[in-house]
Amino acid sequence: MTTTALLTDQYELTMVSAALRAGTANRSCVFEAFARRLPDGRRYGVVAGTGRVLDAVEKFRFGDAELAALDGIVDSDTIGWLADYRFRGEIDGYREGELYFPGSPILTVRGGFAEAVILETVVLSILNHDSAIASAAARMVNAAAGRPIIEMGSRRTHEQAAVAASRAAYLAGVNATSNLEAARTYGVPSAGTAAHSFTLLFAQPDGSDERAAFAAQVEALGTETTLLVDTYDITTGVKNAIEVAGTELGAVRIDSGDLGVLARQVRQQLDDLGAHKTQIVVSGDLDEYAIASLRAEPVDLYGVGTSVVTGSGSPTAGMVYKLVEVDGVPVAKRSSRKESHGGEKRAVRAARSTGTIVEEILVRASNSQAPVSGTAGLDVTEMQIPLVRDGERVPGLPTLEESRRYLARGLVTLPWEGLGLSHGDPAIPTRYLNEPESR
Amino acid sequence: MTTTALLTDQYELTMVSAALRAGTANRSCVFEAFARRLPDGRRYGVVAGTGRVLDAVEKFRFGDAELAALDGIVDSDTIGWLADYRFRGEIDGYREGELYFPGSPILTVRGGFAEAVILETVVLSILNHDSAIASAAARMVNAAAGRPIIEMGSRRTHEQAAVAASRAAYLAGVNATSNLEAARTYGVPSAGTAAHSFTLLFAQPDGSDERAAFAAQVEALGTETTLLVDTYDITTGVKNAIEVAGTELGAVRIDSGDLGVLARQVRQQLDDLGAHKTQIVVSGDLDEYAIASLRAEPVDLYGVGTSVVTGSGSPTAGMVYKLVEVDGVPVAKRSSRKESHGGEKRAVRAARSTGTIVEEILVRASNSQAPVSGTAGLDVTEMQIPLVRDGERVPGLPTLEESRRYLARGLVTLPWEGLGLSHGDPAIPTRYLNEPESR
Repeated sequence: MTTTALLTDQYELTMVSAALRAGTANRSCVFEAFARRLPDGRRYGVVAGTGRVLDAVEKFRFGDAELAALDGIVDSDTIGWLADYRFRGEIDGYREGELYFPGSPILTVRGGFAEAVILETVVLSILNHDSAIASAAARMVNAAAGRPIIEMGSRRTHEQAAVAASRAAYLAGVNATSNLEAARTYGVPSAGTAAHSFTLLFAQPDGSDERAAFAAQVEALGTETTLLVDTYDITTGVKNAIEVAGTELGAVRIDSGDLGVLARQVRQQLDDLGAHKTQIVVSGDLDEYAIASLRAEPVDLYGVGTSVVTGSGSPTAGMVYKLVEVDGVPVAKRSSRKESHGGEKRAVRAARSTGTIVEEILVRASNSQAPVSGTAGLDVTEMQIPLVRDGERVPGLPTLEESRRYLARGLVTLPWEGLGLSHGDPAIPTRYLNEPESR
Repeated sequence: MTTTALLTDQYELTMVSAALRAGTANRSCVFEAFARRLPDGRRYGVVAGTGRVLDAVEKFRFGDAELAALDGIVDSDTIGWLADYRFRGEIDGYREGELYFPGSPILTVRGGFAEAVILETVVLSILNHDSAIASAAARMVNAAAGRPIIEMGSRRTHEQAAVAASRAAYLAGVNATSNLEAARTYGVPSAGTAAHSFTLLFAQPDGSDERAAFAAQVEALGTETTLLVDTYDITTGVKNAIEVAGTELGAVRIDSGDLGVLARQVRQQLDDLGAHKTQIVVSGDLDEYAIASLRAEPVDLYGVGTSVVTGSGSPTAGMVYKLVEVDGVPVAKRSSRKESHGGEKRAVRAARSTGTIVEEILVRASNSQAPVSGTAGLDVTEMQIPLVRDGERVPGLPTLEESRRYLARGLVTLPWEGLGLSHGDPAIPTRYLNEPESR
C-alpha cells in the first residue's frame, strides 16, 4: 500500500505538534471543503474526486520511512502520535457527479482537530484537480450535443494527473480515454487512432508512402480502425484511405486546419466514394467553444486533449478546507476579503415539480431535520450523504458508472441558461439560513 | 519498482502492433521533443523534468499485470514484444534548467520506431508539466528580485503533480516548498507557517483567543516561527504576536487584504513595538505580477500557491514529440497549420562576448562538427548533452542543485527585455540552417 501521508503541507504537522503540546489536538472539530466561487464565469461546478479522496484517506498512514523523513520537522511526541494515526472520524459529502455552487459544502470532515487537519492538503489536491477537469469536461459534453468525445490529453499534464483526469472526464460524460492506466485502474473505456509518426515511418528516400502506412494499420487493426488522413494532403489522404481500406473503413481523423470546412469537404468526398458509413473524427486544440462551433458540421467524434486536462482555462477548482466548528462553537475567519460562514452546515437544494432546480440553501446543521423555510411548493433534496463512519468507508457508495449517470441526470435539472457556455452568474443562488455568529 | 508503462496512450501500442506486423517496427528513427511556440507571450521557457523523464524511461517495463491489462488491445505478438521491452536507444537533450525557445529540440530520442514511439506520452507528460511550472516560477523568482519565495500550492493541483511542481519550482529558484513528499523525494527544503484553523481552534464559547493560539505555536516551534496575524483583526494580531512571542519573533504572515498597504502598516507597527527583525511574509493569490507590484513594499518573503502550480495561466508547455528522421531520411508532416522541420537537428546558441545570448540556431545534425555560419565573433555553445547511451543513463548528469544554479546563471544571459513580465516575442530568434527537404 502506497502511503499518501506525505502528500501534505508541512504546516499541518507542525500545527498538530503545537496542538498536542497545548492539549487542543483532540478538540472536536468540523472542517468543510467548499469553493468560494466558481471559476471564470462558470454557471456550475461538477464534484469529482470523492472516491479518490476516500482511497487517499484509507492510505494516509505513516510508516517508518515517512516518520524518518519527519525527523527534525516535528518532535518525538508528534512522531509517536503520527505512528498510530489513522482517521477515525466521520466524513459526509456531495456525491461524485453532483453539481455544486459557491459555498456548497462538498465535503464535511468531523473528528479531532489533529486527525482532521492533516487531511487538508490531500483532500483539496484531489477535489480541486478532479473537479476542475470534470467541470470543464461536462461543458464539452454538453457542447457536443450527443456526439461522443474521446479524451486524449495525457501528454499535456502530469503523468499521474493524466490518469485522474481521464477518470474525471469520463465521470463528466466523455466516452473514452486514450490513457491505458485509467483503463486499467478505473475501467474507463480506452480508444485510440494513430499518430502522424506512423504514416511518416513508411517514408522512403524517394518519397512518402501513405498507402503503405494505411495498409499496415488496416492489416493489424481491421477496417474498423481510424486512419489519420492529414499527414500530407487531406484529399489524397482520404482517397488513399478508402482505396486501401474499402468503403467499410471505420473512420478518418483530421487533426489540423479549419476543421469545419475540412469536415464538410471530407464528408462529401467520402460520400462520393461510397463510404457513407465511414465516420469523421476531428481533433486539434478543441475546447467547448470549438466543439460548439462544429455542431452543424458533419463530425462524428471529437478528440479533446489540452483543454480538458487543464480545465479549459480553470485548472483548479479553488476549493478550500476550513475549520467551521470547535466543540460545537461556530468559528470563522473574520478578516476582510475572505469571509467564511461559521458553523457546520446542512445543504439542501430546492427544485420545482418539473425537476428544475431553483436554489441551494445552507442551513445551520443543528437544525438537521427541520423543514427549510422559504421552500413551500418546492421539492427539497438533502445534498450530503454519509461517506465515512468511525474511520471506515460506508458500504455501497456509488460506483464511477453510477456517478456518471447521476451527473447526466443532474445536468438536466439546471435552469436552461445554466447550460450555456457564456460567462455569467451561478445557475442558481445560494442562501444561508439560521447563520450563527462565529467566534 | 512502480512501472510507468501504462502512462501511455493506447495508439502508441496499436501502432507498435501494426509496425511489427508490417516489418517496420525496427526502422531506425529519431524523435524530437520541442515546443512550437512559447505560451502566452512568454519570452523564454525553462526546461524541467529531464531527470524525471530518465527515471520514467528506466521504469518503463511491462510486467504480467500490465500485459494482462493489454489483452484485447494488442495481439499476442505485440504482448510478447512488450514483455521483453526496455529502451535500448540513445537520448540527448537540453540540460534541466536550460532556457528554451520555439523549436528548441529539448529531447532527442534515437532508436527503433517501436521502442521510441511508446515513450511519447510519458516523456511529454513530464516535460510539459514540469517545464510549465518551472517557466512560471522563474518569472516569479525574477519578479521577487532576490527576496525568497516559498511554494505552497500543493492543494491546488493533483496530489502527485504537486510533488513534481515543488521540484520544478525549486529548480527555477524558489527557495522552499510546503510539500513534504517533495522534501523527502527530491531534497527540496521544506517550510511552513500555520493556518487560520489553528488560531480558530483556540476559540471558546465566549469568544476567540488568538493569544492562546500564538502562545501554543511559539511554545512548540520557538520564537523563530511565523505567526499568522490576519484571522481576526490584523493590528490586534500583530500586537498579540509580539506580546506573546517577544520582539525576537521570526515573522508574521498576512494572507488577505491589500498586501502592499498592510505590509507597510505592519512594518511600522512592528518597528514601533521594537520588533525590527521580525519579518513579514505575504501570501494569497500571488503571481509574478502581484509579486512585482510589491517590490517597493517592506515584504521579506512571498508564499505562492495556485499560480505557480498551475503555470500562471499556462498549465502546459505544449511540447510535442515528433518523428523527424527514418533510416536517415528526413520526414515531416506537411499539412497546413502544424508544419514541422524534418531531419535530426543539432542546436547551438550564439552569445556576445558579454555573455548575452543573441540567437538559437538549429542545424541539420549530420553537420555535427561543422562551424555554424553567421556566428562570426560570437561564442557558440552546443545545447544538447548525452543523457542515455545503449539504454543506460549517462553517469554524472547534473543534480537538481546543479541544474538550479545552471538556470540562475542562464537567466543572466538573456537580453534585458527578455526578463520583462510583459507579453512579447521570444527573447531571441530561432534560425534553421541547412534544412533538408522532408519526405
